[in-house]
Amino acid sequence: MYTAIGYAAQSATAPLAPMTFQRRSPRADDVAIEILYCGVCHSDIHQARNEWGIAVYPLMPGHEIVGKVTAVGANVSRYQVGDLVGVGCMVDSCRHCEACQADLEQYCLEGPTMTYATPDRVDGSNTMGGYSSSIVVSEHFVVRIPQGLDLPSAAPILCAGITTYSPLKHYGVKAGDRVGILGMGGLGHMGIKFAKAMGAEVTLFTRSPGKAEEARRQGADHVIVSTDAAQMQAAAGCFDFLLDTIPVQHDLNPYLETLTFDGVHILVGLIEPVDPALHAANLVMKRRVLAGSLIGGIAETQEVLEFCAEHGISCDIEMLDIGNINEAFSRMIAGDVKYRFVIDMATLKA
Amino acid sequence: MYTAIGYAAQSATAPLAPMTFQRRSPRADDVAIEILYCGVCHSDIHQARNEWGIAVYPLMPGHEIVGKVTAVGANVSRYQVGDLVGVGCMVDSCRHCEACQADLEQYCLEGPTMTYATPDRVDGSNTMGGYSSSIVVSEHFVVRIPQGLDLPSAAPILCAGITTYSPLKHYGVKAGDRVGILGMGGLGHMGIKFAKAMGAEVTLFTRSPGKAEEARRQGADHVIVSTDAAQMQAAAGCFDFLLDTIPVQHDLNPYLETLTFDGVHILVGLIEPVDPALHAANLVMKRRVLAGSLIGGIAETQEVLEFCAEHGISCDIEMLDIGNINEAFSRMIAGDVKYRFVIDMATLKA
Repeated sequence: MYTAIGYAAQSATAPLAPMTFQRRSPRADDVAIEILYCGVCHSDIHQARNEWGIAVYPLMPGHEIVGKVTAVGANVSRYQVGDLVGVGCMVDSCRHCEACQADLEQYCLEGPTMTYATPDRVDGSNTMGGYSSSIVVSEHFVVRIPQGLDLPSAAPILCAGITTYSPLKHYGVKAGDRVGILGMGGLGHMGIKFAKAMGAEVTLFTRSPGKAEEARRQGADHVIVSTDAAQMQAAAGCFDFLLDTIPVQHDLNPYLETLTFDGVHILVGLIEPVDPALHAANLVMKRRVLAGSLIGGIAETQEVLEFCAEHGISCDIEMLDIGNINEAFSRMIAGDVKYRFVIDMATLKA
Repeated sequence: MYTAIGYAAQSATAPLAPMTFQRRSPRADDVAIEILYCGVCHSDIHQARNEWGIAVYPLMPGHEIVGKVTAVGANVSRYQVGDLVGVGCMVDSCRHCEACQADLEQYCLEGPTMTYATPDRVDGSNTMGGYSSSIVVSEHFVVRIPQGLDLPSAAPILCAGITTYSPLKHYGVKAGDRVGILGMGGLGHMGIKFAKAMGAEVTLFTRSPGKAEEARRQGADHVIVSTDAAQMQAAAGCFDFLLDTIPVQHDLNPYLETLTFDGVHILVGLIEPVDPALHAANLVMKRRVLAGSLIGGIAETQEVLEFCAEHGISCDIEMLDIGNINEAFSRMIAGDVKYRFVIDMATLKA
């Protein structure tokens, strides 16, 4: 066993605080990783505070992990000590079901093992995430960080990046497609970059007119202020795809009306009941599609990292000392971060 | 001009009653048709009673038309006097937009001209449907009835048939797919036949345990009683496609949970707000799709007729004297028809 340190919540109402704990010695297929950077995802807050009702304490968040290999198990073939690697939202799955066989471990029929707050498939221990000095993960769930990517700004690609890249890729977004991105947070700003890199004409939908200039800086060709009924009406039937990163309940109908026939509205941020109600006619009358998408598989996570290296894409980040993690949570809830906090894990040892 | 007779509603509260009116002389691209049979679709009731708020009176319903060509315009090349032909839900469209160019006239960006209660694109007159002795329709919107199809039972293929065939085809239903059909009315019983003919393993979802035997007679391999929570739970993750023909509000969530990852729930009957609310997590967590589909294009309507001839598929019908049309409406509202009334237009002249 390794002694590790990290920040964890001991209950739904406790702030994150330092904690010493044990990481397992690498199994034959395991890679042991010294964590260098870890992105801070909004779901870390939901889980730390048990807002989804599935938290297990102590809860150590973090699933946008970049680090260096420090040891490998006997059967590990793809990684060596010193390699720069990443770990995203999952650390295991059943590996034999139809979804796993299709490289879609996130839809594993038995349920994937998430990077934190899930029972390990071998020893049943509660998984502990990346707000820590080290992690031990089965080789299959480790990805390589390509040369040329800045390490801290690559970390959020492991969740915010793959979550937006995967559906754009799955639905075949290509040059000339008209893509709308709903919301410009951690996910949305990555969505703009990916859609643009795929050759699409990209429009940001935002409630904030003040975000127009920043959206264009991120690569958006156009900006539509979603609270302006005239702008929304003028966009009727204009879009092939909408990538909806809005993480709170919102009226889907005005957005659906901006899709052409066969247009696809992809939800990646919403997991609540749809309220106000979805109007079925908005789908039926134009053969439109309302779809969901969850992160991405491991092979596709490797792919998005390479796509980012090739296209010079990274996440816009603000570096964070881990001692300020609770303040960072508050700022994220207030929308006060562009666009992702990334913990410099060197500050954990200081 | 031709003098024609038919049954029409003079207002939202008036029963259908006989009416004499004028059909235009064929334009250069027109086909004049003596109507032999016309199916009775539930939307005929909605429109006659202005339940969608878009009725124009006098309103003469009918868009499942089978008849014989009696005259053709100078430029008509595909049809001759005496040919057996059909007319479905549309009689015109803009013919140049992206949708029309893709043989998807039903999604015409300028809006298709429906077979009844829509202004004709040339002279602005109110279109009159198939509850009548004759109709005059542009060649492009006329389909051929293949040899071997029984004429009256072919009529509902023009709406109930194409509406269920089109999405199954669009989404590529194939041998081995597990397809659930929701509801067994005019649309649902055709959905069972098509999915079965495409090689799928077909399950009927119904509220009525008493429909099990009849569903198997129609070709269903299995029946799930949707009000039985245990049966629904046992079906979790089992289906690749759901074809949802239920025309009234219903909870989509228990059905979505029966879909596997990447499963597709296709709405063809519902055009109301979705109530109870759709849970976004049911889409996101398994990359499921909620889609809509509206009838089908003209080329695909020809295709479904040929598919029916090839596979020996037709609609189960009850023949109707047009004088009993108002009683038939009442029986349809009570669900008392297996599965489609078809008017024998000979009874109009009697």
